[in-house]
Amino acid sequence: MTEQVKFDRVVIVGVGLIGSSLARAVRERKLADEIIGVDRDADVIARAKKIGVIDDGGTTIEKGVKGADLIVLSTPVGAINEVCEALSSSAPDDVLIIDVGSVKGSVAKAAAALPDRLHFVPCHPVAGTEQSGPEAGFASLFEDRWCILTPLAREDAAYQAAVKKAESLWIGIGALVEVMDVQHHDLALAVTSHLPHLIAFTLVGAADDVESVAHGEVIKYSAGGFRDFTRIAASDPIMWRDVFLSNKDAVLEVLGRFSEELAVMQRAIRWGDGKALEDAFARGRSLRRAIVDAGQEKDVPNFGRDKE
Amino acid sequence: MTEQVKFDRVVIVGVGLIGSSLARAVRERKLADEIIGVDRDADVIARAKKIGVIDDGGTTIEKGVKGADLIVLSTPVGAINEVCEALSSSAPDDVLIIDVGSVKGSVAKAAAALPDRLHFVPCHPVAGTEQSGPEAGFASLFEDRWCILTPLAREDAAYQAAVKKAESLWIGIGALVEVMDVQHHDLALAVTSHLPHLIAFTLVGAADDVESVAHGEVIKYSAGGFRDFTRIAASDPIMWRDVFLSNKDAVLEVLGRFSEELAVMQRAIRWGDGKALEDAFARGRSLRRAIVDAGQEKDVPNFGRDKE
Repeated sequence: MTEQVKFDRVVIVGVGLIGSSLARAVRERKLADEIIGVDRDADVIARAKKIGVIDDGGTTIEKGVKGADLIVLSTPVGAINEVCEALSSSAPDDVLIIDVGSVKGSVAKAAAALPDRLHFVPCHPVAGTEQSGPEAGFASLFEDRWCILTPLAREDAAYQAAVKKAESLWIGIGALVEVMDVQHHDLALAVTSHLPHLIAFTLVGAADDVESVAHGEVIKYSAGGFRDFTRIAASDPIMWRDVFLSNKDAVLEVLGRFSEELAVMQRAIRWGDGKALEDAFARGRSLRRAIVDAGQEKDVPNFGRDKE
Repeated sequence: MTEQVKFDRVVIVGVGLIGSSLARAVRERKLADEIIGVDRDADVIARAKKIGVIDDGGTTIEKGVKGADLIVLSTPVGAINEVCEALSSSAPDDVLIIDVGSVKGSVAKAAAALPDRLHFVPCHPVAGTEQSGPEAGFASLFEDRWCILTPLAREDAAYQAAVKKAESLWIGIGALVEVMDVQHHDLALAVTSHLPHLIAFTLVGAADDVESVAHGEVIKYSAGGFRDFTRIAASDPIMWRDVFLSNKDAVLEVLGRFSEELAVMQRAIRWGDGKALEDAFARGRSLRRAIVDAGQEKDVPNFGRDKE
């Protein structure tokens, strides 16, 4: 049992869904004396301050990070190099830096380039909703969700202590922590997150492009299955653009496998191979059951949409 | 305003999720004096009787349909020819027959082959959950969902009256009714229901087959998006096998379009074309908004999984 880490001054860079959820969680659990927001959009800072997510804030990293003992980077992944450049000169000595990005390869590279006086522990909380902005966040977002840490290959005691602090922070706000190799993270998440999003975005586009089926029909009959895809296809376009640009190799690898599998299904339909279809379809139920049993999904039919 | 149709004796052939939901809805709205179940599985009949979904029942259509003024076919679509053969000799004169199948081409063909003394109006309530069996049904399943009717090309007054009765029944249990051409139905539903199911089934299989990513990891990190797909991939394998075997042409058509679109996305990722990705991704939000506005989806983030 390690002692719960607490911070004097937490600086959240990028006050969107994830950043504001982390701010709320830290505040609710009393893990920080002060929470400062930094966002390139001054309106976001004003709104976040108004709803009490941050105590104060501004639009420049250099000013914002003064006196911080924890800096949380919750911008889209594509901004990581620019943000790290600003931090390398302005962030205070011995500060713990974490990020929340869905890709870790590009983040780890930027983190490794920082001076050793800064302790950047790349993190990925596997949690989120389809909504964006500081208003969309909520304190319980990370509860019972996994947060994957991919620490740098630094063996100095200061960095090791920073990794422990990062773990303590995530556990302190209800998450489950796993430490993982960067490459493995990017492949595993390409499977469980990036490919599903790409497929959902693609299906939504393709469905709306069948000329002989009206836009209104796609909407009216979406309860047949289509609407399930639209939740994740409603996710932030910028965030997801950056994920695919930053995790190209792993995404192309798992996409290739998906396409092969889809070709097999296509042939089974064309040839009328009912046995092959039935066998393939039968796998879904047990996998969903396992996800429910692991506490990663609620055990209600139809996502609880229906009145019983 | 037409008068609400009522029935003396409703016979449900296939007492699963949809059949038992219809039975419950009809009973709750007091639209039938007696509800009889027919299922080839005697255990299903016993269970449905025990929980009060049906008044009585058995395993043979010929016996079950005696005295019926409404017969509801809620078996998998693949059983339609066999069921219609049994009905052609045993069903009483002037009975209204409806089905609930997700494909209408094969059903309409079987329906047209019945003697004119039987009035089969093919129906498709676009509603369902990932669960199966008589216990999974509930009376409100069809409320505010669309039910598509694809009546036969029969102009006799008896058949026209039967179509009106079928409409009245669906409206009576809370559904919205649309009349549509058979071919158009099968294409529109290939887009909004059949393709999404095929994609979900395929993704679930492909994800679980990446050797270097453990089965346990797929489950642990499923909150990254994958779990959304597992709901519809947990649907009844036999029902869905029959859908793909019965609606081959339309499914292959929309699958071809999806694959093209996916290839475009794949190229955008390979070439690092962020603009193309961002533009494609931006469509999802407005479509989801439209589905929520049309009352076909609940307006809660993350399917309401989270505690706020």
